[in-house]
Amino acid sequence: MPRIAYVNGQYLPHSDASVHIEDRGYQFADGVYEVVPVMSGKLVDEARHLDRLERSLSELQMDMPMSRRALQLVCDSVIERNYLTNGFVYMQVTRGVAPRDHKFPKGIKPAIVITAKQTKPQSTAVLEDGVAVKTVPDIRWRRRDIKSISLLPNCMAKQAAVEEGAFEAWMVEEDGTVTEGSSTNAWIVTKDGILVTRTADHDILNGITRMGLLEVAAEAGVQFEERPFTLEEAYEAREAFLTSSTNHVTPITRIDDRSVANGKPGSVTMKLREAYLDRIARE
Amino acid sequence: MPRIAYVNGQYLPHSDASVHIEDRGYQFADGVYEVVPVMSGKLVDEARHLDRLERSLSELQMDMPMSRRALQLVCDSVIERNYLTNGFVYMQVTRGVAPRDHKFPKGIKPAIVITAKQTKPQSTAVLEDGVAVKTVPDIRWRRRDIKSISLLPNCMAKQAAVEEGAFEAWMVEEDGTVTEGSSTNAWIVTKDGILVTRTADHDILNGITRMGLLEVAAEAGVQFEERPFTLEEAYEAREAFLTSSTNHVTPITRIDDRSVANGKPGSVTMKLREAYLDRIARE
Repeated sequence: MPRIAYVNGQYLPHSDASVHIEDRGYQFADGVYEVVPVMSGKLVDEARHLDRLERSLSELQMDMPMSRRALQLVCDSVIERNYLTNGFVYMQVTRGVAPRDHKFPKGIKPAIVITAKQTKPQSTAVLEDGVAVKTVPDIRWRRRDIKSISLLPNCMAKQAAVEEGAFEAWMVEEDGTVTEGSSTNAWIVTKDGILVTRTADHDILNGITRMGLLEVAAEAGVQFEERPFTLEEAYEAREAFLTSSTNHVTPITRIDDRSVANGKPGSVTMKLREAYLDRIARE
Repeated sequence: MPRIAYVNGQYLPHSDASVHIEDRGYQFADGVYEVVPVMSGKLVDEARHLDRLERSLSELQMDMPMSRRALQLVCDSVIERNYLTNGFVYMQVTRGVAPRDHKFPKGIKPAIVITAKQTKPQSTAVLEDGVAVKTVPDIRWRRRDIKSISLLPNCMAKQAAVEEGAFEAWMVEEDGTVTEGSSTNAWIVTKDGILVTRTADHDILNGITRMGLLEVAAEAGVQFEERPFTLEEAYEAREAFLTSSTNHVTPITRIDDRSVANGKPGSVTMKLREAYLDRIARE
């Protein structure tokens, strides 16, 4: 069966799915996106993803391409047409097609693409050994709270990490604090046993898994703080991990050339991971 | 006659010209571009534009999509097929099409789009009255020397300017210095009569018109400095102007709610403009 993509009102074979060369997403990165996990054929945390999509669009003075209800129906249809059980739905909304001009054109319709992809379960090696992160300077723009497709620096960071055998890049501000990964949020359990992740302001994207995990931590009675942490603190941490919609909660056992504590996934990390997976399975 | 676009080896009617939804330009802003002016059917400063294209690609570990000679031939063909006399050629090169993943995929071919557009001569009102700029905080990434399509903040800046009736946005760093416009370089003639434009490091794009104009200024014996200047200096300047491949040298007579000097285009500006236009006409 060919993969099917939804593109501006049509369901098309993935290989033929295209957008106009003057789509502002292509010329200006003038658009936003969401990656929504799918488990057993159902969208996970759908409401929060659509809330964030609406917020990203609104920050860029863009309208939703269709009603929220219609968007849900299209997502369901894409899941069905692709026989998707476990994986994710990717949706991208751009300002639309217009003659190239930096200012926002008037009277055009947003363009929308929705695709689906089956993924394999996370490897057991990743859970047993954890992953490595490499730190790079955070050179991105100042509105990382908007989930825009302006992702070139994120790609460069990820590539720099991969070239050194790491799974993810952690981006570090000039003041020495860690912001987030190239496509994941960053967490540590400090040497004093406090769970810490950065405050969700303009400096990072407020991950849906991040939000859910903070709730899970509160329910589990894990003491946590939302605040910037430094790379030095991370080097000295008892545990470290990353979160994202596709990686859930993944232990980090190496930061640059240093082991995190004894180099094994931490117990708080694995407890939170289990509680988080229970939570999304229950929903 | 329909407009013709060159897209990955084919000459297509502009209205049908499209790229795949998984072109990394569309999903990640993973690409670069050039806008090359055309006068009397000929590319202006072609070598410098192609040099910069090569440099942008190289900084992103991307290859040229074809040889330089082949690229020149395609540009000439696009000019011819569109009966273009005066306007510009737009070329965009992205890393290519690959399943969505932040890291750079291996073994894919860069994608290329080339279009042409006829433009009207600059209005005489702009030259007689000058234009207004509005200042906005510079929130862009730190590698503005790469002419990438990651232009969302530039679009937001331009839009903010247009909404207040200005022609262009000038972007200002936290330290109070002006970097550049959303798609133009920024210049002043200080109250002491020195021509100043920002050093071409990672903070700005090194405009082709900027480079040419510095040569013209040297030939004309105009004293100049390449250094950051503050917004305060600009408010007190005798003259201000902007440069770009499509705007050449355009006088600025208002910055935010303040007139530049007496509110008329400056004499140094207009002298340099004339010398610059002579230079490109001679070539």
